[in-house]
Formats: sequence, C-alpha cells, structure tokens
Amino acid sequence: MKHWRRQERLVYITKYLVQHPGETINLNFFAATLGVAKSSISEDLALVKSALRRGGLGWVETELGAAGGVRYWPGGEVEEARALAYRLCEKIADIRRFIPGGFLYLTDIAFSPQLMAQVGDIFAANFQPRRPDYVVTVETKGIPIALMTARSLGVSLVTARREHRVTEGSAVSMSYVSGSTQRLQTMSLARRALPTGARVVLIDDFMKAGGTARGLRELLREFKAQIVGIGVLMEMAEPPQKLVQDYLSLLVFEGIDEERQEVRVRPSDWLLAEKGGEV
Amino acid sequence: MKHWRRQERLVYITKYLVQHPGETINLNFFAATLGVAKSSISEDLALVKSALRRGGLGWVETELGAAGGVRYWPGGEVEEARALAYRLCEKIADIRRFIPGGFLYLTDIAFSPQLMAQVGDIFAANFQPRRPDYVVTVETKGIPIALMTARSLGVSLVTARREHRVTEGSAVSMSYVSGSTQRLQTMSLARRALPTGARVVLIDDFMKAGGTARGLRELLREFKAQIVGIGVLMEMAEPPQKLVQDYLSLLVFEGIDEERQEVRVRPSDWLLAEKGGEV
Repeated sequence: MKHWRRQERLVYITKYLVQHPGETINLNFFAATLGVAKSSISEDLALVKSALRRGGLGWVETELGAAGGVRYWPGGEVEEARALAYRLCEKIADIRRFIPGGFLYLTDIAFSPQLMAQVGDIFAANFQPRRPDYVVTVETKGIPIALMTARSLGVSLVTARREHRVTEGSAVSMSYVSGSTQRLQTMSLARRALPTGARVVLIDDFMKAGGTARGLRELLREFKAQIVGIGVLMEMAEPPQKLVQDYLSLLVFEGIDEERQEVRVRPSDWLLAEKGGEV
Repeated sequence: MKHWRRQERLVYITKYLVQHPGETINLNFFAATLGVAKSSISEDLALVKSALRRGGLGWVETELGAAGGVRYWPGGEVEEARALAYRLCEKIADIRRFIPGGFLYLTDIAFSPQLMAQVGDIFAANFQPRRPDYVVTVETKGIPIALMTARSLGVSLVTARREHRVTEGSAVSMSYVSGSTQRLQTMSLARRALPTGARVVLIDDFMKAGGTARGLRELLREFKAQIVGIGVLMEMAEPPQKLVQDYLSLLVFEGIDEERQEVRVRPSDWLLAEKGGEV
C-alpha cells in the first residue's frame, strides 16, 4: 500500500478520533492503517491535538504504556454550552409551542439528533472526569439525549422501561410518583442490563420535582450501582427543592404566562455569565 | 486573530464536517472562522475530500452558487456494512442471550450508541440518494437506530408513540396487529410532528411480518407523507412474505435451536458476497 501523506493522515486521524469518542486507540492501529512509522503518527497526533484545542473542539488524551494509546473527548466548554442554551431558549420560547392544558410541545427538540448531539457533548464534558461506565435513562423522551451523551462518553446506554418486557428476561421493577403527571408510574430494568456495582450517570429530558430521578436511584440500588452524576436538559423552577441533589441542568423553565402569551425559559445558573463570574 | 495554518485547518474542517453530516456549510463560514481566503478553503476541502474518499470514510459534495457550500455524507460502503453485519451476528449468536419463551435479549445492542451509529451510517448512505426530509420510527427500541440514521442524514427524527400524550396536542392514532406479539397495538403521532407531504424513511429495530411498518404507513397516509425507504436492523426469515415491500435489512434471524443451543442469524442477502456477485 502506498503510504499516506501527512495532510491525508491528519484528515483520517481526526475523522477516526471524532467518530470514536472515549475509546482508547493504539498508535499501532493508525501506523498499520496509514502505512507509516509510529513516530510519524505521534507527530500527527500532536498536530491534531493542538488544532482541536485551538478550536475548542475537544481534547486528545495520551496514555502511555503497552496498553496505551490516544483517546478523544468532545468539547463542551462553558461558552459553547451557554451559546447552545440561549439558542434552545429562543427555540422554546415560541408561543406556538403552547398546548391547551398548560403544556409546551418540546418533542421535536428532544428528538433532534443535531441538538441532542450537542447537549450530549456538554454532558459528556461535564461527567467524563467522574469516569462513568454507563448512562442510564427511562423511556422515552430522554433516550436521544442519553444516547448522545453515552456516545460522547464512549460508554453504553441502559434504558429502564415503563413496563416489563417478556423479551428481556427477569427484571427489577419500581413504582414511583412522577412529578409532572402526579401519577403512580412503574419503571423496570432487566437484570442483565447492568452489571453489579457500575458507575452510572442518569440522563433525562425534564425534571420537575425529581421523582423520576429518585425512582431511578431506588431502582439502581438493586444493582448496587453508584450514581456519579445526574443531567437533565430542562428543570422546572418550581419546586426549587428537588428530591435529588447535585444534578446538572441546561435550562430552567419558569412557566407559561397564558395571558401575555409568554413562555419563560432561561439558561441554568452555571451558564449565566453575570452570576458565574469567572466561568 | 492569527490565521490558521493549513495543517490545523484540515483538522478543523474535518472535525466540523464530520459533526454536521448532511448540512450545507458555506465556504465563507470556514474562511471567516479560520481567517484565510476562500480560495485556501477550497484547496483545503479538496484535500479533505480526497483523504476521506481514500479511507472510505464518506464523501464531500460541493454545491455551486450563492447558496452553495459543502456537504459531508458518512461512508457506509458495502464492505463496511458487511463487516458490521458479521460482527453483529457474532455478538447475537450467543446462547447466553436466550430467554425462556423463545426470545433473544438484544436490548444492549439496540441501545449501543457505538453500534447504532455505524448502522445509522449504513442506512444513511443507502437512503441519502432518495433525499428524505425525516426519519420516522415507533418507540422504543427503534429510537437509537433511527436517531443515528437521522443524524447521519442531517434530518429530524419523528417518533410515533404507543399512547397518546396530552403534552403533544392533537394527534392521529392507528391500531394495528404487531407481528411479534400478535397483539393489537396502537401508535399515535402528534399533528404538529410532521408537515404535510414530507419524504420519510421508516427505521425500526426488528421486522417479523411487517405489521408495524404497515401500521406506520397507514398512519403516515394521514400526513400525506411519501415513504422513500424502509430500514430494519434485523428481519425474521419467517414469514418470507412481508406486509411491506422494498425494505432494507442488515440481518436475518432464522431462529433458535433450543436443543442444539444454537442461535441462527446471518447477514442479509445484499451483504452476502457469494450471492451478490459484484458487490
């Protein structure tokens, strides 16, 4: 095989890393695929690393040793998260989204692959230092965000179901009261879905009082899982006291003023420059 | 701002294109962001294009004119699809997946972000020439594949629900008989989820007789949608006559031999080299 020139290699390596976030890739793989010495690959990687850093596009981590290699993590800097949050607010604060009964139509946003990929990058950047093994969510609207977060973290997604499926074997079930519907709900997770003692991040689209997150926490206790982070796309301002602590939200929903035809939604505190000071 | 050197620009442009599949990006955007002339960007793009093509990593399309720009489509060549299909078969043909009642545990695969991203690339490469506006699926297990397909196509995902949600406004509902459970099921799609006359690709995880796909087709008739493609991860060999025609599957499930402890699954015909001849 004719070996690849540096400019081509930079394209190949960048594309490969970006498509495999969180995965450790041995330098020998690149050397063999591109037909050059490992030392050339090291130089290529240094270039890729600095260009990505310069563009705020993520970072490349090098692990030394025989089992070593490189790993790419997507960006997700605070400025980027803030810009996305404002863009989402603008999209959401559209009175045409209003649905009689006091609801807001958000399904298109929760299922947008493009938007949820960006949200996933932001959650991944925040939770990656806690080294989770799994992302866990409950069906249905949290799945796209959770899937994209898991992809950016390079881990698997586990989805609790609303009803037990015979096709999934033995399962653990849990009843809880959902804050948004005030109804008794059930969630269920197959025994084989999660090994004992895993480190997990919980991801959902919406949090009112945190009933679903608490239900999930109870359910995960049966799997001796350790919850190392909780992320939600949007929390409701009310009630301010949630049933779970230490969660990360992107947006705060303050309500709909039907008379003034106004949807009130804003970025979460950690994204507000005027409050965050040095962020 | 200090302008970016070519090597850095190649990394930036590659990363940006790969993160925005199917989106038309104006050359002025790259020129402004990287602080160089549009002619330099054109040269960069030619390099990116040829390196991606050489690596079988996708292709870059140039659109001329004022509204023109470049668009990236992920790879998804037949060899790649075949390799993935064989890898999935190996994963699936594991007797530990067997669940009493004649079922197979596949949830971990259907929810794997890494695997479903690859499946999404393959579906996108196959359906992209038909220029779909939307990907449509039914909750729950089809969502990850459908989301990744929509992402690779650069379009939105629309998900029919199992029950009507008050939070989504007026909706169209449809009853159908699911082939896999032989039960009467309902699916429902919010009126505002899909504009009239859209070109859609249907994506699901599993097809037995095609009852779900036919139900979706009926449902979409209410939206005057044109179905330009149907993709499923795995179809059952039985019954060979499905209720819908012209679908693309990756795998064929031939059954479980409980006595011999054997799971029989294989790549679909179009991926079998010995049958496909020239593929």
